[in-house]
Amino acid sequence: MVQFVSVENMIALIQDKGIENIIMGVAEAIEDDFKRWPDFEKQPRIASHSALGVIELMPTCDGVTYGFKYVNGHPLNRDIGKQTVTGFGVLADVETGYPQFLSEMTILTAIRTAAMSALAAKYLARTDSKVMAMIGTGCQAEFQAHAFKVMTGVSSLRIYDIDDAAMDKFERNMKGKGFDIIRCDNAQKTLIGADIVTTCTADKRQAKILTENMVGQGMHINAIGGDCPGKTELEKSILLKSDIFVEYPEQTWIEGEIQQLDKNHPITEIWKVFTGEAKGRKNNGQITVFDSVGFAIEDFSALRYIMDITKETVFAEDMDLLALPENPKDLFGLLG
Amino acid sequence: MVQFVSVENMIALIQDKGIENIIMGVAEAIEDDFKRWPDFEKQPRIASHSALGVIELMPTCDGVTYGFKYVNGHPLNRDIGKQTVTGFGVLADVETGYPQFLSEMTILTAIRTAAMSALAAKYLARTDSKVMAMIGTGCQAEFQAHAFKVMTGVSSLRIYDIDDAAMDKFERNMKGKGFDIIRCDNAQKTLIGADIVTTCTADKRQAKILTENMVGQGMHINAIGGDCPGKTELEKSILLKSDIFVEYPEQTWIEGEIQQLDKNHPITEIWKVFTGEAKGRKNNGQITVFDSVGFAIEDFSALRYIMDITKETVFAEDMDLLALPENPKDLFGLLG
Repeated sequence: MVQFVSVENMIALIQDKGIENIIMGVAEAIEDDFKRWPDFEKQPRIASHSALGVIELMPTCDGVTYGFKYVNGHPLNRDIGKQTVTGFGVLADVETGYPQFLSEMTILTAIRTAAMSALAAKYLARTDSKVMAMIGTGCQAEFQAHAFKVMTGVSSLRIYDIDDAAMDKFERNMKGKGFDIIRCDNAQKTLIGADIVTTCTADKRQAKILTENMVGQGMHINAIGGDCPGKTELEKSILLKSDIFVEYPEQTWIEGEIQQLDKNHPITEIWKVFTGEAKGRKNNGQITVFDSVGFAIEDFSALRYIMDITKETVFAEDMDLLALPENPKDLFGLLG
Repeated sequence: MVQFVSVENMIALIQDKGIENIIMGVAEAIEDDFKRWPDFEKQPRIASHSALGVIELMPTCDGVTYGFKYVNGHPLNRDIGKQTVTGFGVLADVETGYPQFLSEMTILTAIRTAAMSALAAKYLARTDSKVMAMIGTGCQAEFQAHAFKVMTGVSSLRIYDIDDAAMDKFERNMKGKGFDIIRCDNAQKTLIGADIVTTCTADKRQAKILTENMVGQGMHINAIGGDCPGKTELEKSILLKSDIFVEYPEQTWIEGEIQQLDKNHPITEIWKVFTGEAKGRKNNGQITVFDSVGFAIEDFSALRYIMDITKETVFAEDMDLLALPENPKDLFGLLG
């Protein structure tokens, strides 16, 4: 039987453990896995593009466990009352090839993205960071806020979204969660006094959510909305005056903010910062950019963490996905 | 909710409709889809190789529906009482990116492989073919026999396997199914008088299951066991005197019998035979080889057929795989 975590059980699990604990658990799993980066098979995700969006498979393998995520990105879905991103993930045993674990990953993707963002910021943002500007208060926003609170000590949020209802929703959801929230009426104002900036917008086009004049010395920019070819959020000149950190360069050159740059532009792989091979923040004046597009290993880490904590609990079900006849050569016998 | 067909329900469905009807239904879906070959996004499967086997993702898309299969191939699993091949598949709606359908594909892969084999033979074998030699009577064998019976009129089977127990199992399963079965004690004898030869062995190495001297004029060879790099079943000289038909050349050059040939060797894409663009069998003396490795579109076709016939029936369950909040921007609200 395959261990299955449904949407209902994912929600129950998070309610039981608390969102911040789950985020920290996922972040720890990501950090552990990124520190053994060379152990993993890596490739850019396998994308199927259509006029309205993209469907992707994101596989990876550490030689013991194989994992992949199915995920879509359909920005216009929100206009028809649907989710822009949905997903599910699978882990399998490399030795036998048998799938072991299947989980919803619509919610879990939001969690792992927030965990990755805050983990990177732990190494890249100024250690005295308290104020985060958030451009875009869609599906990711609350998860990001919780992650930055518990992992980097952010306590003040300056928010902006072109959609007032999205800001209403954010404020409603985050009420009483220990944040001081300031609602702004444009992106420029949002950045005033911010130590960290998170950009998370969904337009599938080259946008300039941040322009150079907005970005002050010492800021850390967590750029997570630019995540497919032709979709970026930062003005190129911001990148030119920053130090840029990425997950997996082969994928980020295709999908990230650095699409805008010359292929020789220096970038640093974030896993090397985690292991100490590369330097993160060097001084308080430096501008750092985490050009995050999401990478398969993050999903792998999130899945193995959820598999571990739900094993033999009420949060996992048995799924009848594998036809396993007693005599392995007698598959046909199952029909008789 | 995602429509889910479990192993138990796949078995119940086959028992209800009859294996030969299901095979014909899948074959018809494959033929329809292969006839609109240019409509599909195609790529060689994405393989993760390990010492003991391979795990693969096989995606394709026709612009309306996206599909992929997860499948493993672990030949040594049989030595530890496990399945060498297991799988599951998914269909999704391209417009929204939402997964729609998930099904077991361990049994369904056996069915679609048999359907593809017999469909190709309908175009490539002599129309008076009655006798099929089968080298290898493992998991695929009974499915192949049923497919060739119902689709090409094969009534006599000459079988051989290095494992006596596998032949016992085959004879037991096929008893009373309308076949005349002759058990042979080596591959050479098996081929005597055969119109069609199906080779389906599982060794992950370059083998010579068939040698040139065994193969007579007018034979059709259905070579399905050579399906990954370094794994072949036919002596090269057989290929040199045959006309060779393949599914998707880019993948077959990597995985099929034609690994052994010069890249300029002429091969014919089987979809062109289905549409009439290319000739199948030209005369009764010609030797034809269907160098089948299995391609993503076959899984897509099998999945869409099973999705259609199980929709709103007792054979499908609702699976809670998609987190879909009422307000699409309020994913976090689901946790409240």
